[in-house]
Amino acid sequence: MSQGKLFLIPTYLSTDNDASFVSPMVTEVLQNTKHFFVENVRTARRFISSLKAGITIDELEFNILDKKSNWDQMYPLFEPLRNGEDMGVISEAGVPCLADPGNLAVSFAHQTNIQVVPMPGTSSIQMALIASGFNGQKFTFHGYLPIDRNPRQQKIRELEKLSQSGYTQLFMETPYRNQQLIKDILKTCRPDTLLSIAADISGSTEKILTQPVSKWQKTDIQIHKIPAIFSFGQFP
Amino acid sequence: MSQGKLFLIPTYLSTDNDASFVSPMVTEVLQNTKHFFVENVRTARRFISSLKAGITIDELEFNILDKKSNWDQMYPLFEPLRNGEDMGVISEAGVPCLADPGNLAVSFAHQTNIQVVPMPGTSSIQMALIASGFNGQKFTFHGYLPIDRNPRQQKIRELEKLSQSGYTQLFMETPYRNQQLIKDILKTCRPDTLLSIAADISGSTEKILTQPVSKWQKTDIQIHKIPAIFSFGQFP
Repeated sequence: MSQGKLFLIPTYLSTDNDASFVSPMVTEVLQNTKHFFVENVRTARRFISSLKAGITIDELEFNILDKKSNWDQMYPLFEPLRNGEDMGVISEAGVPCLADPGNLAVSFAHQTNIQVVPMPGTSSIQMALIASGFNGQKFTFHGYLPIDRNPRQQKIRELEKLSQSGYTQLFMETPYRNQQLIKDILKTCRPDTLLSIAADISGSTEKILTQPVSKWQKTDIQIHKIPAIFSFGQFP
Repeated sequence: MSQGKLFLIPTYLSTDNDASFVSPMVTEVLQNTKHFFVENVRTARRFISSLKAGITIDELEFNILDKKSNWDQMYPLFEPLRNGEDMGVISEAGVPCLADPGNLAVSFAHQTNIQVVPMPGTSSIQMALIASGFNGQKFTFHGYLPIDRNPRQQKIRELEKLSQSGYTQLFMETPYRNQQLIKDILKTCRPDTLLSIAADISGSTEKILTQPVSKWQKTDIQIHKIPAIFSFGQFP
């Protein structure tokens, strides 16, 4: 018997998104998949239900795959795949395995000869990068910055410097610390450093703006608790 | 009069893709946009036409935005935006501004207060990363490796070393040099280094595999002239 495939299924970026955000190809895969790895069961159910694609949610099996998941849990959870059934990985937002723990399942798949199939969809990181105007030929995503003041300021200076090398530098923050991060950047960076802020990407209050630090210092930007991606970079 | 918006419009990754690859939201934007920046007019026309969305191609205006484009050309081309009409940027494959010259238009938009709106869609870089099983919390994309033998081998060693730091290292090659790159990697890297190769992503011959260099040395992989993304990284 041939084995199933592990599909990487993108979801929404914002609670404002609806089915028009999703490729029909993704919906089609969902219609044929009964077993899932999900970061959050409630979000995954709500997402599949919102597609209005005739899928009976109660027939689906959701296995939680989050920060606490480990290698030893994977073997039993992969049983449907070994039995020839497809499975899907669904993240909390955007594509799975990007700034989320989904790659545990993917790495297990590679090591047990299960085929991995990524589906078209976007991530806030990709959206922020393309909308920044910065170099998309070379870039680094750093995830979250350090929480403590000193290492954090140091990291900001390091990323500012790295961005001068031509590599766009992307990073993020827990949304309720966004305003503090902006404050730290504006205090730390050179006036001519270009900073891009992409907030509530694809949501109804989407705000994407790239300008020098000196101009940000005169801009009243309020994104407290709003998901955002930050980047330093250069214009062509 | 209010200004138009600059939409960043994703296209296919493979010539095997069809309209089911594209979010309905993207098609909707295309139905309301008459002016475009495109990397290749023929590809853009073929893409829009393939969506079968009732768009009359002959009514559309395509402005070439490629490696040779420069800043001075932007002002006149932005006239529709200043006149309140939307414009779109379309790449040769995937999302614009990622490993392509579209960011020239985006940076011009930011500097002239034109709103930039990224649309959902994917890139081969994002697909390769999420399907690798590697860390998606921290990663760097390096674009093309150097062509000459010595700097190239040196770069391979550098990326291999960087991948040990926890940052996934992604790179690519002109497709007709893929086999040479693989040969160089297998000759240069440590046997236990994990290499992921994602070839013909979303195409009918898609092949995505992550395994140690020692196992690649025993694998007959033929991807001459097939677009591919390579990465070094670590499993969780």
